[in-house]
Amino acid sequence: MSVSEIQQAKKTVEFSRESLEAVLRGRFFYAPAFESYGGVSGLYDYGPPGCAFQANVVDLWRKHFVLEEGMLEVDCTMLTPYEVLKTSGHVDKFSDWMCKDTKTGEIFRADHIVEEVLEARLKGDREARGLGAKPVEEESADKKKRKKKVKEIKVVKLEDDVVKEYETTLAKIDGFSGPELGELMVKYNIGNPVTGDKLEPPIAFNLMFETAIGPSGQLKGYLRPETAQGQFLNFNKLLEFNNGKTPFASASIGKSFRNEISPRAGLLRVREFLMAEIEHFVDPLDKSHPKFDEVKDIKLRFLPRDVQEAGATEPVVKTIGEAVASNMVDNETLGYFIGRIYMFLMKIGVDHDRLRFRQHMANEMAHYAADCWDAELHTSYGWIECVGCADRSAFDLTVHSNKTKEKMVVRQKLETPIEVTKYEIDLVKKLFGPKFRKDAPKVESYLLNMTQDQLAVKAKELADTGKITFSVPEVEGELELDDKFVTIEERTRVEHVREFVPNVIEPSFGIGRIIYAVFEHSFWSRPEDAARGVLSFPPLVAPSKVLLVPLSNNKELQPIVSKVSTTLRKAEIPFKVDDSGVSIGKRYARNDELGTPFGVTIDFDSVQDGSVTLRERDSTKQVRGSIEEIIEAIRQIAYKGVTWDEGTKNLKPFVSQEAK
Amino acid sequence: MSVSEIQQAKKTVEFSRESLEAVLRGRFFYAPAFESYGGVSGLYDYGPPGCAFQANVVDLWRKHFVLEEGMLEVDCTMLTPYEVLKTSGHVDKFSDWMCKDTKTGEIFRADHIVEEVLEARLKGDREARGLGAKPVEEESADKKKRKKKVKEIKVVKLEDDVVKEYETTLAKIDGFSGPELGELMVKYNIGNPVTGDKLEPPIAFNLMFETAIGPSGQLKGYLRPETAQGQFLNFNKLLEFNNGKTPFASASIGKSFRNEISPRAGLLRVREFLMAEIEHFVDPLDKSHPKFDEVKDIKLRFLPRDVQEAGATEPVVKTIGEAVASNMVDNETLGYFIGRIYMFLMKIGVDHDRLRFRQHMANEMAHYAADCWDAELHTSYGWIECVGCADRSAFDLTVHSNKTKEKMVVRQKLETPIEVTKYEIDLVKKLFGPKFRKDAPKVESYLLNMTQDQLAVKAKELADTGKITFSVPEVEGELELDDKFVTIEERTRVEHVREFVPNVIEPSFGIGRIIYAVFEHSFWSRPEDAARGVLSFPPLVAPSKVLLVPLSNNKELQPIVSKVSTTLRKAEIPFKVDDSGVSIGKRYARNDELGTPFGVTIDFDSVQDGSVTLRERDSTKQVRGSIEEIIEAIRQIAYKGVTWDEGTKNLKPFVSQEAK
Repeated sequence: MSVSEIQQAKKTVEFSRESLEAVLRGRFFYAPAFESYGGVSGLYDYGPPGCAFQANVVDLWRKHFVLEEGMLEVDCTMLTPYEVLKTSGHVDKFSDWMCKDTKTGEIFRADHIVEEVLEARLKGDREARGLGAKPVEEESADKKKRKKKVKEIKVVKLEDDVVKEYETTLAKIDGFSGPELGELMVKYNIGNPVTGDKLEPPIAFNLMFETAIGPSGQLKGYLRPETAQGQFLNFNKLLEFNNGKTPFASASIGKSFRNEISPRAGLLRVREFLMAEIEHFVDPLDKSHPKFDEVKDIKLRFLPRDVQEAGATEPVVKTIGEAVASNMVDNETLGYFIGRIYMFLMKIGVDHDRLRFRQHMANEMAHYAADCWDAELHTSYGWIECVGCADRSAFDLTVHSNKTKEKMVVRQKLETPIEVTKYEIDLVKKLFGPKFRKDAPKVESYLLNMTQDQLAVKAKELADTGKITFSVPEVEGELELDDKFVTIEERTRVEHVREFVPNVIEPSFGIGRIIYAVFEHSFWSRPEDAARGVLSFPPLVAPSKVLLVPLSNNKELQPIVSKVSTTLRKAEIPFKVDDSGVSIGKRYARNDELGTPFGVTIDFDSVQDGSVTLRERDSTKQVRGSIEEIIEAIRQIAYKGVTWDEGTKNLKPFVSQEAK
Repeated sequence: MSVSEIQQAKKTVEFSRESLEAVLRGRFFYAPAFESYGGVSGLYDYGPPGCAFQANVVDLWRKHFVLEEGMLEVDCTMLTPYEVLKTSGHVDKFSDWMCKDTKTGEIFRADHIVEEVLEARLKGDREARGLGAKPVEEESADKKKRKKKVKEIKVVKLEDDVVKEYETTLAKIDGFSGPELGELMVKYNIGNPVTGDKLEPPIAFNLMFETAIGPSGQLKGYLRPETAQGQFLNFNKLLEFNNGKTPFASASIGKSFRNEISPRAGLLRVREFLMAEIEHFVDPLDKSHPKFDEVKDIKLRFLPRDVQEAGATEPVVKTIGEAVASNMVDNETLGYFIGRIYMFLMKIGVDHDRLRFRQHMANEMAHYAADCWDAELHTSYGWIECVGCADRSAFDLTVHSNKTKEKMVVRQKLETPIEVTKYEIDLVKKLFGPKFRKDAPKVESYLLNMTQDQLAVKAKELADTGKITFSVPEVEGELELDDKFVTIEERTRVEHVREFVPNVIEPSFGIGRIIYAVFEHSFWSRPEDAARGVLSFPPLVAPSKVLLVPLSNNKELQPIVSKVSTTLRKAEIPFKVDDSGVSIGKRYARNDELGTPFGVTIDFDSVQDGSVTLRERDSTKQVRGSIEEIIEAIRQIAYKGVTWDEGTKNLKPFVSQEAK
């Protein structure tokens, strides 16, 4: 079938998540981890086809991003000490709000429970008013991911102003703090939806897994919640590796961890997941991109902030060039990566019509971020954030540098030197030891790290009064120094080098979520055999490329099977032999579920003349040729981007009754 | 230089670990993680060349093992619940013995401290006797990995019988339990080697990182200490995926974690490391291997158990075929994997002369293991275990199956049905509930899971006395049942299916250790430039394949640089441009340290006639040809196993003064 015929078939046989999951579980794309031990929610294992698919996606990611842009890939540890994540803000802010039911011991995510209960009441109200359900499209993505806690909808009509209030609350649900959620629960009398019992007020639950490093148990650590911090901490080494020049990008592929309160949506919300992250370091004064022209004509669906603020969901379709020119997307580099993300997603089989780029709302975005766009993929759970693409400004390097006192800057030689006037402070250090004893280093460090604004104030104080007073963290009392100890002056110097903290553009990929979306986008059933599914993966990322099918278990066919196997192995084309003895049709159907793009059939004619049959998964078209011809066609189509028609143009069409 | 010339150079310029580490750190192959935060011992990050080298090794591993054998690769979670690791034995046994100095708070590994102190005393004794140091070869590998705790050697002569006793103790050091180590410390008066203070008796320190899964904190989990358990737990799904047939193998590549007490030896003993493990499931009655012939003529250095027991270190050199035929290696499948491991290590650049296969001694091997061989690589730290290859019998599947009550067996249709006589037990279950109430399921389960031996005893008891007495774990008191409740009989049935628990052959690779050994094996210096190192990686695994060097920063050369870059990118050959402006010689020297096998120089002739120069890293030979010819030569040599001479035979030799 052609692409449009598959689209037609998708309309004929409606998508069913249950059917897809039956295939994915039945063919061991994935399975709940530790199933025989009762399982652990939010943990999944990838079986052979899932693992191979993931490996192919990662391999392609590496070629598409790392190799193409000459990125500096690093592999940093997952174990991360407390101090690092304290500095990055994760210890304080990487949390969700949870409420406990003290009677049953159940734990609920506060925002989810408020959302669900209010929605259930609104639904009951609509039924009481004789109105239908709200259209599915309008439901929030995240909500649909979860199995409902509210088991029963009570048909109760609400006051009109209550309906309005609930709706307003739901529209802002992502923006409430924990205490605010607690107030809403009291105000709207929201408790355990099954028993009705009151819940304890929301408390913050940090989503990082904690552990102790070393035998003493003293060094607290976490499993990283993202791969980014390791890249930031290695910035100086990476800059040196790159001969001191920016822009450059680092990249990292690896597992990260989030101890979700109540993970439910299958592969979409898990506690251990594969990420691929890029940190592109760029001059804050020049975010142009030399290869921007290569992406500027790509047309995308954008959902910018203002459209969302107006309550609309209709995307704006324009080219990346237009998006950047109109300042909708902040800068060229951000636009370039949006384009590259789009191209990558297309290569691995995302449905073009089910991708949009959504801009973060003001309250979603970190205070330091300049702009942020999520690539969202549409699935049966709604629109899912799969790739984030943020301009994080200089935040990360600045906080780590402030904490460690290690400078993280780029030094750029100025073509024309410039005069810079600024305050400078000089300490007569030999006097500090006698005066401050063990506190001397802290006092010195405090003074040497004052900002220009602070220095301006202190310079005036020193000039006016002959001394400065100040206090230093961890040092007791107010301190005082006169001008024998310290000089603060405004001086003008000629600078030949410009020093700057680069900004970071961060495309961040949730590989597991992308993979699940591709599963959904690739799944369909033939109208004549609706009970069986087909996973139409692009050959490049398909878990296995070829199913080798001897027509029967007759020993005569064995040498040909061996010969084709050896040739495929030598060509490094992954394949699988199915000599299970069931009918060819059944074997092909099984194979369609595995998403294997090509079947090679060996029959008794093969023994005579060395020819074999090649079958294409989607169209079920078949051609016949020599082993070498067939394998070359597979190689061209699977790896070189050649079309089926082009790749098989010199091969004879083949029709058989059995091998449909 | 040819291989033998490199060997010659290695003799001229002696290996220096300091020089190697300076290169590895300087070129950012790796760095201590969180260095700007003071670092965490045992945690390292791989920078761009280390990360690329690792990715290439993993890619080759996948092709060499997974693709070649059609293995079923899985990707299982690192987070693992307590119960699973309790069953596998890790909770109880995966630990080292540690001693605390209560005064200083220092923690020592008990076996290490005993070993170090006794060795220091023996060394002092040898000095007192005027004897030289022991030859380095004889020192144990593990000992040399550690920075010494004993800072000072006291020259004190010991009694002859004390020397003998110390030597005997050291020879058995790996075999002592914690309490035995404690006794030795008392007996030999071993305390903190610096202060002399007494240490607390050894306590077991479990090496797994612990964490809590989920918001309640109730579900205790660990970071996996190996990837194997996930593969065992998925056995039934893998067997089904393989159409119910054995033998087959699963494989997994991923990080594992060990909370080492005191990690010191750089990349060799780390807390987070990459493993690649294979679990080959095989019929216990038939461990032959169909491809054994492909490896049987490979000659290897074996260090079998009996040689070690005799105190010798001279390996036995024989073919794998001879090793299996003489029962030195237990079976063909184990032998086959030993051969494949050897081939893999050769491909990635291990020095043939610095590899041996050492058999586990009786006290090293798990009680259930049938045989175990370690591939050890020789480094400046001594002989290091890098790959384990064990026949683990049916242990793992059996313990998990016993715990979960999920059968993990292979069902094999028998060609000729057989008669089997065995005891069977029948319960009249409707009587169990009234008699045992809530304990009924436990009692039933106990009775139904009795072994044939137990049943034989109980059958006799029932026949003799009309009743059986027994006790059930977690059920109070002795229980009694008469023949109204239970029947136990010997019955003969015709069986058409044979059921068996497969045995597991487990090749397990420590990728980080292998990589470090390859670093050492590949490192040498040119006698004429001994201060600079060369890393002679095989092109296939080299981090980057090509350094692109424009002769100057003249703009005229730019179009050629772009053209070569585009062509290399299209051919998916990783490369790096060095337009840093330092001399070509310096750029090549830098590149030698990165182990890049090829240099492509662009000069002003390139602008005229489109030709470029190709330089080979080891020999510094140069040839000249068109861009297409040069890149094709690179492709053939780097990826297709073609030699330099063969790959460049149609290209003109090139000599220049500058580009040496």
